[in-house]
Amino acid sequence: MNEIIRQQLDFLTELDKMKQIFRRTPLIDGSRRENDAEHSWHLAVMLMVLKDYAAPDVDINHAIQMALVHDLVEIYAGDTYAYDEKGYEDKLSRETAAAEKLYAMLPHQQSKQFRALWEEFDACETPSSLYANAGDRLQPFINNYLTGGEPWSSNNITKSQALKRQEPVKHGMPALWEYVQNTINDAVAKGMLVDE
Amino acid sequence: MNEIIRQQLDFLTELDKMKQIFRRTPLIDGSRRENDAEHSWHLAVMLMVLKDYAAPDVDINHAIQMALVHDLVEIYAGDTYAYDEKGYEDKLSRETAAAEKLYAMLPHQQSKQFRALWEEFDACETPSSLYANAGDRLQPFINNYLTGGEPWSSNNITKSQALKRQEPVKHGMPALWEYVQNTINDAVAKGMLVDE
Repeated sequence: MNEIIRQQLDFLTELDKMKQIFRRTPLIDGSRRENDAEHSWHLAVMLMVLKDYAAPDVDINHAIQMALVHDLVEIYAGDTYAYDEKGYEDKLSRETAAAEKLYAMLPHQQSKQFRALWEEFDACETPSSLYANAGDRLQPFINNYLTGGEPWSSNNITKSQALKRQEPVKHGMPALWEYVQNTINDAVAKGMLVDE
Repeated sequence: MNEIIRQQLDFLTELDKMKQIFRRTPLIDGSRRENDAEHSWHLAVMLMVLKDYAAPDVDINHAIQMALVHDLVEIYAGDTYAYDEKGYEDKLSRETAAAEKLYAMLPHQQSKQFRALWEEFDACETPSSLYANAGDRLQPFINNYLTGGEPWSSNNITKSQALKRQEPVKHGMPALWEYVQNTINDAVAKGMLVDE
């Protein structure tokens, strides 16, 4: 078989491991935690559904492609919980090492393209990346809220921490900011988040 | 809250159920079956990775959007196993009823857009749909083969049935057809598929 195709199929096979990287977020039925493959899919569809709230210079399809690959490095680096300060200390170095290993599996040119999508997402600077990052915060936020906020309450997360975490929504999906603020207020009232 | 946004968030919440619709395909580590959210994500990334093998008139981003929503109707209609002849008898009517129910949750214009993506995928006629359908056959094929072909052998699937099932790859991703043929031959040699 063509060596390029072999590399690409091996890469796609490796990606199956995304289905076993579990996040802090529960499914909405509360039965178990969500994995990275499920999260990436739900995020990508969210970017389709909410496209009318993206800024005019957002390329929805580019945002979707970023969403689909933004967590691939977690195959080797693992998921870091949003409020895990210690985990965030070495998150970048762990994920950079993971990117080196993972993207080396792809043919050279494609390796650079995939890595660039991940770097653009992580930098959260371009309009399309801001939009994708907004969805990346909103999707688990909804699941956490609808299941009683266990990932927040069991870690004593405060209202101001939650507002800060959702900040990309304010910039990347401003039409959703009122919903986020109201939901955070309700989560405080229901004891899911700490009001300091 | 804005009624349109409320509808869209309710739709996105309903889609969480995709993570509980299990398919016949195993994960590559063999630990459990794959669900529809995971499959849709893996397929969408596959369409990114193999884009150089798409026909020139394929719109990769349009194919990815189809991939992301092509199985949503299974939230109500359930997954129909590829070789389940009885299940296929009423697959269309079950899925059409499911589409009516699911897409009615979205604002009118968006409802039509999402439904059109599903119908284009299912008709398997446009170049982008042919490409997306090729991936939809190839992704579970790889997982089945790499885990010893249990979904095939336990249903006495024959070589010609497998070749027919993979036919969209021949048309939508012709560069991958040699790999599919060789793999089917190997699967026959290893007793995963029946050589009639």
